[in-house]
Parts: sequence; structure tokens; C-alpha cells
Amino acid sequence: MPTQENLIPLSGWRRKLYIIIYEADTRAGRIFDMALIIAILLSVACVMLESVSSIRQQYGTLLTVLDWTFTILFTIEYALRLICVHKPLRYVKSFFGIIDLLSILPLYLGLFIPESRFLADIRILRLLRMFRILKLSRHLGEAAQLRRALLASRRKITVFLVTVILLVIVLGTLMYVIEGPEHGFTSIPISIYWAIVTLTTVGFGDITPKTPLGQALASLVMITGYGIIAVPTGIVSAEIARSAPDPASSDNRSATRLCPHCFSEGHDWDAQYCKHCGGQLPRPAKGEVS
Amino acid sequence: MPTQENLIPLSGWRRKLYIIIYEADTRAGRIFDMALIIAILLSVACVMLESVSSIRQQYGTLLTVLDWTFTILFTIEYALRLICVHKPLRYVKSFFGIIDLLSILPLYLGLFIPESRFLADIRILRLLRMFRILKLSRHLGEAAQLRRALLASRRKITVFLVTVILLVIVLGTLMYVIEGPEHGFTSIPISIYWAIVTLTTVGFGDITPKTPLGQALASLVMITGYGIIAVPTGIVSAEIARSAPDPASSDNRSATRLCPHCFSEGHDWDAQYCKHCGGQLPRPAKGEVS
Amino acid sequence: MPTQENLIPLSGWRRKLYIIIYEADTRAGRIFDMALIIAILLSVACVMLESVSSIRQQYGTLLTVLDWTFTILFTIEYALRLICVHKPLRYVKSFFGIIDLLSILPLYLGLFIPESRFLADIRILRLLRMFRILKLSRHLGEAAQLRRALLASRRKITVFLVTVILLVIVLGTLMYVIEGPEHGFTSIPISIYWAIVTLTTVGFGDITPKTPLGQALASLVMITGYGIIAVPTGIVSAEIARSAPDPASSDNRSATRLCPHCFSEGHDWDAQYCKHCGGQLPRPAKGEVS
Amino acid sequence: MPTQENLIPLSGWRRKLYIIIYEADTRAGRIFDMALIIAILLSVACVMLESVSSIRQQYGTLLTVLDWTFTILFTIEYALRLICVHKPLRYVKSFFGIIDLLSILPLYLGLFIPESRFLADIRILRLLRMFRILKLSRHLGEAAQLRRALLASRRKITVFLVTVILLVIVLGTLMYVIEGPEHGFTSIPISIYWAIVTLTTVGFGDITPKTPLGQALASLVMITGYGIIAVPTGIVSAEIARSAPDPASSDNRSATRLCPHCFSEGHDWDAQYCKHCGGQLPRPAKGEVS
Repeated sequence: MPTQENLIPLSGWRRKLYIIIYEADTRAGRIFDMALIIAILLSVACVMLESVSSIRQQYGTLLTVLDWTFTILFTIEYALRLICVHKPLRYVKSFFGIIDLLSILPLYLGLFIPESRFLADIRILRLLRMFRILKLSRHLGEAAQLRRALLASRRKITVFLVTVILLVIVLGTLMYVIEGPEHGFTSIPISIYWAIVTLTTVGFGDITPKTPLGQALASLVMITGYGIIAVPTGIVSAEIARSAPDPASSDNRSATRLCPHCFSEGHDWDAQYCKHCGGQLPRPAKGEVS
Repeated sequence: MPTQENLIPLSGWRRKLYIIIYEADTRAGRIFDMALIIAILLSVACVMLESVSSIRQQYGTLLTVLDWTFTILFTIEYALRLICVHKPLRYVKSFFGIIDLLSILPLYLGLFIPESRFLADIRILRLLRMFRILKLSRHLGEAAQLRRALLASRRKITVFLVTVILLVIVLGTLMYVIEGPEHGFTSIPISIYWAIVTLTTVGFGDITPKTPLGQALASLVMITGYGIIAVPTGIVSAEIARSAPDPASSDNRSATRLCPHCFSEGHDWDAQYCKHCGGQLPRPAKGEVS
Repeated sequence: MPTQENLIPLSGWRRKLYIIIYEADTRAGRIFDMALIIAILLSVACVMLESVSSIRQQYGTLLTVLDWTFTILFTIEYALRLICVHKPLRYVKSFFGIIDLLSILPLYLGLFIPESRFLADIRILRLLRMFRILKLSRHLGEAAQLRRALLASRRKITVFLVTVILLVIVLGTLMYVIEGPEHGFTSIPISIYWAIVTLTTVGFGDITPKTPLGQALASLVMITGYGIIAVPTGIVSAEIARSAPDPASSDNRSATRLCPHCFSEGHDWDAQYCKHCGGQLPRPAKGEVS
Repeated sequence: MPTQENLIPLSGWRRKLYIIIYEADTRAGRIFDMALIIAILLSVACVMLESVSSIRQQYGTLLTVLDWTFTILFTIEYALRLICVHKPLRYVKSFFGIIDLLSILPLYLGLFIPESRFLADIRILRLLRMFRILKLSRHLGEAAQLRRALLASRRKITVFLVTVILLVIVLGTLMYVIEGPEHGFTSIPISIYWAIVTLTTVGFGDITPKTPLGQALASLVMITGYGIIAVPTGIVSAEIARSAPDPASSDNRSATRLCPHCFSEGHDWDAQYCKHCGGQLPRPAKGEVS
């Protein structure tokens, strides 16, 4: 649905920038992507180390400087990503646009709420682009197959989840009435939390039934949880067994191209227009291809 | 098996009331259903909040008033449901009739046994009607498919459950003899509870073996539990893979109609008589359909 | 392979006794079986209650008397079972012969080692006969199908188990060296026990890693355990999906007959000789059949 | 790719030694292998017992002597394995070559770092040869089938694992910010460790959320973990169901032969040359075959 003006091909430095940042088929693009992956990993490591109090006390200043350096770099990158596309708002609202924004916000937010700066770790999700960048198109194909299997079974899974949620509410309420606050079941929400811990077979053990009746009901919950895990497993197994590998996502070089108009992926190597919005796809000049 | 007199079609205000309360195809019916869903969710939230002691101390009176308001509303609704059907006893004994009754009883019971009023939460199960009300007939179809798969494998699952129950009794007894009351295995029922906690891989950790022999037996229990989870999963997987989607429950508007005589669901849009009991189905007047 | 003398049909009171005790097709046989089931359940309940110290203090004498009554009854039954078959030793060495003996031994043993009397609970396994007694031949068929699926995958499961055992030994040793006795990993066997607790996703939490390296290795163990549970599940799922229901175990009245010579089950209703050993099968007289 | 000189068949005492040590088809070979299995099991038991402090205090000297005896024996064996092959380096770099080296190193290393001597337990992995030695070729075939199924699904499993790793990093970070060090979530790495413990449904309970928001997020993590276990299980189930038993690994005597040049296994009984490197396979003389 882009209007005619969106379709005017980019040109000049913005076009070059676009190819470096968004595409992965030129040498400059690959170098940029690799540098980005390394920067993401290093910055995430920084944030993690900073959260360890003994390390923070010793290297606090260094880590803060590094944090800010990375965040400023990512901010510049974000600005460049905005500049070199026709419709920046579409990028902002796309999945990776939101992730990219969430990657730089925490540190600025951390000036007001100190704790929130650690959320910068969420930028690890930017690595999801990795599959595209590293030309792991076979993996992309398998991922797509898994996604389709899960998508095909989404209604069954919804039915299952709704059943589970109703079940834990009822079981949590029963346990609250049976055990009561004196045995750690201090409220219905806490008891529902316990029911989830137990039904999913996690079993922290921070809250445990003490009365014989409570233990009998808990036994029932556990056996139920142990048994009904068969349901989602059965659903997904059947769906994966049914789904054949997607021929469209077979090993080719298409997976690394991206439409600058609607940010859809998976365009064929020789496509000139986006198959989703009809916008013209930028093609790296012959010399640019390695 | 309804006698001739049951088949006399309802008429007058009772017929109108029936269509509003039991059917979901008219505007009034949809508004009623939506109001009901909201009332259920709000009242459940009320009960949950009341169970949190800090909230109860501050807003106790308000929450009690709200609890009683909702319960009185649901009591009136229950009475109306009884009035507008031919054979009220059939409704009372139907699955949702029991749930509806269980939704209003706890608060009245709470006058004598205070703790029991929290059981009002069980009214969350009334949301199971949601699938029918929200015309989620596709979900209903998938749910029916799951139910059929579980039903088809019920004998295998019974065999599995009986085996598991015998196993935990034997293992619990052995652990009681090996570990004894001094290590937390205070009685055979408690030891069986421990065996269930362990076999289902929940592992609370409130009771754990301390002697080498006990730990060796526990290891065996854990590996057994880890291995035999494959059995129910295998059963259900095979059954789901075998079962094709039910053609009868395909996407149509039938799932929202209900027989006033036998309370069976899933009548076709153009059906005039119940396919289960032969009773006449009430049809909303043309003007009533949105 | 029974010699000629084994094949001489039983006659007189021993034949009648045999039909009452071992067969379930006459009225007397059914009454005996039902009484036996009730006696087993009651005696197991007795032993369980006796293990609860508060109940033992109050009703100790009564429960001891009941225990002895049941054990003496079962001892008489065991003697009768021995008397009314041709080759008592075969019964003694059969699966249910061993269970029956283990059901009466603990109380006599309890005269010397008090704790061991609780092992009488193992007599719950006698209920496995229930499937045969209650003519649950359909369940027997499904159980046989499950058994065949597990049998067909026994080699794959052996390979899996051997891998798991080698894995937990190596992981337990590593954790012992990394964490050491000061963090609860007091010896290699204890560390192996921890590795089993963790790999099977039970997670008691009685022993947990404290060092960063230990926690990293533990994370690896957990993800491995979470992932490889797919292997036995996949094996059994594939096998169950492959196995068709056994036509030989379809719904008939055969499952309740038992050969008095070799104690094999599943003889056809009109069979006169055991299909396994060739021994003559006792047939209830016409009047005896209900 | 062995050069001509590698293909010169071994002869004399080195050839005899080779057949005894590497092959399992002669009587001497079988005796050697059996002695080896017993030595491995005994030495592992020694190391385990030594790690139990009460046993170490009493039998410390004896166990140390035994440890050294076994290690010296295994060192001699390792030297013999090196001597009787053409290209010792290939053996050193092969899978079992590394395991064999790791089996003797710890005790020597223990002279400098005492704790490391317990790593000698890793020699239990030498038992993996057992399948070959005990001529369990059917098990080998099933193991090969499992390996192929896992191999065929390795890309899907990689996609799944990457998703899980990204997920626990994000969830761990969120929990760290929500709960904070005062509730046990002392750093982001620790919080990620907690997320793994929870997502894999292990649930040690050494760290548990205390705030309502933390418990709500934990509930989400648990339900996610409970649900997505369906994914690897579904992948492996589908793959195992698809894969037919490997005809090449059917029951024959081939699995016990080993190429002295490239250490590949699975050569046919009547093969004269290695199918992988073309090197001549040593054949036991007629008299040597039992």
C-alpha cells in the first residue's frame, strides 16, 4: 500500500548507508553486521558484569563508561537507521525497530530510575537478526517450519492454556481454603502461584502443603500436571510430523534481503519489487557484491 | 425421552427470557452474556483481593458488600434460569447447572463457616461457557478433537495411572522403612506423598532422603519418573496424530444454540427440533437476530 | 513340557477349590475374588494407619490384631493355593506366587525386625490380578499393547539409560571437584545423586551449587535434562503410533482363565488344553457358570 | 588418505598385540577386554569410595595404593596401544584416544592439584566401548538410529536452544530488576541461572520470587517452560517415527572390527581393507577365532 512517492528509489549516500546497515550481501554490510554482533555481545557482557556487586565495586567506573559508549553508539546507529529509510515510522513500529529502541532506552531511563539501566540486556534480542545476517537460511527454513507447526496448533494450545488457567484458579482456591495462611498459603493469588509451581512440575518447595488433605490434593495436582503435559506435547508432535519442510524456504540467498518500505524479509535474489508492498527493492551494485 | 407436554413450545415472557439467558444469537442475548462474563471476572477478582490480608484490612467492608451484591445478582440469575425452562430439574442436574449453583452457595455457607466463602472463586468455571458465547466454534471444534483423543486413550491412561498408583504405594512403603520418621518420612501416607512428588519430577524438597540407601532408591524413582512420562505422552501423541479434525464441528453458527429440554449443545442453525431429545428448539424472531 | 502325570485332571474337593481360588467365572469364584480385593485394601489401609504415630498411639492394639488377622487369613489362602495345584513349586516361582509370599512374610519377619512389618503394604501389588478378576479384558488388551510398545523399544531405552548413567557419573564427578564438600557436595556418590536429581528435572534443592562455575555447569545439566527427555518420549511415541491394537486380545471372556500347570493366562473360552504347556485346563461344570 | 607405507600390514608381536588390544574376536582379545571392563569398574569404584570422607579416613592408604596401581596399569595399556599401531598420533587424536588419555592424567595431575585426582572417574566413559566389545551390535544399530534422528533434527534443536538462551537472558534480567538482590537475585548471571532452573521445570527453590510481580512473571516462565518442552519432544518424536531401522547396522558380526589406520569402526566380517581409508585390516588367523 505504499503511495507512488514511497517507491522512488533511494539514491546517493542514503542509498549506500541503507545497503550497509540493512543488507548483508556486500562486504561493507557484512563487516557492519559483524561489528554489530560483537558490540551487542560485549555490551550485554558489560551490563551483566556490572550487576555483580563485587565486580561493580572494583570496576564500576570503567563499566559505566563502557555502558554509555555502547549506548551512544547504538543511539547513533538507531538514528542512521531512521535517516536512510523512506518511512522511518514504519521501521520504528516494526518488530526489530521496537527491539532496537528498547536497547537504548534503559540507560537514559536509568538516569531517573537507577535499577532500570540493567534492562539494556534486552538488546540480546537483536541477535535474532543473526540468523538472517549469518545467512543461516537453512536454519531460517527450519525455524519457519517450527513456527508453522506452532501456528497450526495455536487453537488447540489456547484451549489447553485456558483449561490450565481455570484449573490453577480452582485448585489454588481449594488449597487456600484447606491449608490457610498459617501454612504459607497466605492468599488466593499466592495459592494460585503455588498451583502453577506444582502443576508445571517445577516444585520450588518455598510453599508446601502441611495438612493430610492438602497433601492429598497436592498429589492430585502433581499427577494431573505430570499427565497433562502429554497434551501440548502430543499436539506439537502431531503437527511437526504432519508438516513437511517448507520448499519456499530452501537454501538460497534470498533470506538476507529486506524491503526498505515495509520491512518484510525473504525476498528472492532476483526480485526487483517487494512482494508484500510493491515497493522497489534496492539492489547492491555489481561491484558491491563480494 | 421427553413426554408430549415437554415439547409444547415456550411462549410469552418466559420464552423471551429463555432466548436472552440461554441463547447468544440476539442482541439482548449477547449483551446479557457479555455482562455476565464481566460480572464473573469482577466477582472473582473481588474474592481474590479479599483473601490478601493487607487489602482485606483496608477495603474489607467494600469487598464484602461487592461480594454480596454479585452473589445476590447470580442468585437472581439462577432463579431466572430455573423459571424460564420447562424442566428446571434437568438444568439443575446438568454440568453448568451444578457449576452455577456452586457459584452462589459458598457465600451463604460462609455465614456459618467463614473460610468457605472463598470457594466462590469456583465460579470462574462458568467462563467455560465463554467458548460457546463468544462464538468460538473453531476452538470448540479443536477442543472436541482433543477430548476425543483423550477419550480414545482413556483405557491406556487408566492402565498407566493404576500402575503409577501401585508403584508409589510400594516405593513410599520402602522409603518409610529405609529412611524412617527421623528423616522426615513420618508415616507411610507421607512417604507415598513424597514418592508422588518425586516420581512426577515436581521435587518440592520439603522431604528428602538422607541415607545412602534412601538416596539410591530415590535415584531409581527419579529415573523411572523421568522415563515413564514418555508413556502418557506417547499415548496422547499417537492418538492426536491419528484423529482427523472433526468435520461436524467445522466453522458454523450452530455451536451457540442450546436445547431447553435436555440442555444439549451444537444444534444446526436451521434445526427446529433437538437432535438428542426431539424437543422443539426456540428460534429467535427475525427481528431479534442482529 | 509337563509329564503325563501332571496332565491328570484334578478332581474332588481340590478341583472345586482350584476353580474357586484361581478362576473367576463361577459365582463362588467371583465372591472369593471380591472378598480378596476387599481384604487386601483393608489390610493395606491398616498398615498405613499404623504407620501414623498419632493413630498408632490410640488404636495400636486394634491395628496389630487386625494386621495379624489379615496375615493369618492370607497365610491360609496361600496354603490353599499350594494344596489345590498339581505342581505347587511352579506357583511359588510364578510372578504372583512371589507377590503372594511377599505379602505374608513381613509380619512374621516383623517379630525379629519390627520396622519390616510395614513392608506388608507390598501386598497392594496383588491387585494387579484385579484386571483379570474384574474381566477388564479390554484394559488387558490395551495394557498388552503398551507392554509390546515398551518391549519393542527396550534396546533404544537401554542405550538411552546407559548414556544417562555415564553422563550423571561424569557430571557428578565434575560437580564434586568444582563445588566440593563445603557446598554440600560431600562425596562423588552424593554428587551423582545430585546430578540425577537435576538431570531428571526433579530439583529437590537439598543440595545446590554455590560457585559461579558450578552454577554454569548445573545450567548445562538442566538444559540437557530438559532436552533429552525428548528422546525416550520420542522413542515410545513412535512405537505406540506404529503398534496397532492387538487383535488377539480383543474383547472376549478368555482373559480370566488360567492354566493350573504353568500358570499362563489368556486361554480361549472353549480351550480344553493349555496352549503353552499342553496341560488340561479345568472347566467349570455347567451349573457353576452364572 | 593413508600413504602406501601405512598400508604395510603389521606383523610379528606388534600385530599380535594389536589383535589382542583392539579386536574382540579372538579368545585373548575377549579376555583382555573383559579384564579391562572389570579394571575400569573397580578403579571407578575406588575413586568414588575415596571421595567419601568416612571411608577415606579408614581405608585412605589402601585406596591410594589401588588408585595408583590402576593408573599405572592404564598407563602401560595406553603405551601398548600407541606402540602397536602404525600412526600413534591418529589414535591419540581419536575420540577414544582422548578418553583414554583423560583416564590416566588426573592422578598425575593430582600430585600438584590434589582435588583433580577425582576426575579419574571420567574413565567410566571408556565403557562406551562396551557396546562394541560385548558384540551388542543390535544395540549399536539402535544407537545409530537414535543418533541419526538427533542429527537430522539438529538444526531445529539449535533454533530451539538459541531461542531458549535468549529467553532466559531476557527473563533473568527482568527478574533481577523486579526482585533485586534483597530477594536472592543478587546479579544478572544468578537471575539467568534462576530462569534456567525455572524454565526447565527443575525448580531447586534456593532462589524464589517474593514480590507479587516477580511471582506473576515466574508463573509465566513456568507455564512457558511447561509448554515449550513440547517442541524438542515433538521434533525428536517426528524424526524417530520417520527414520526406519538402519539396514546396514543389522545383526552381524562386523561391529567389532576396527581399522588400525584411521580407527573407524563397523567393518564387515569379510572385509580386507578399510572402507574409509583403504588401509589393510588385520585378520585374526583361523586358529585365533573361537
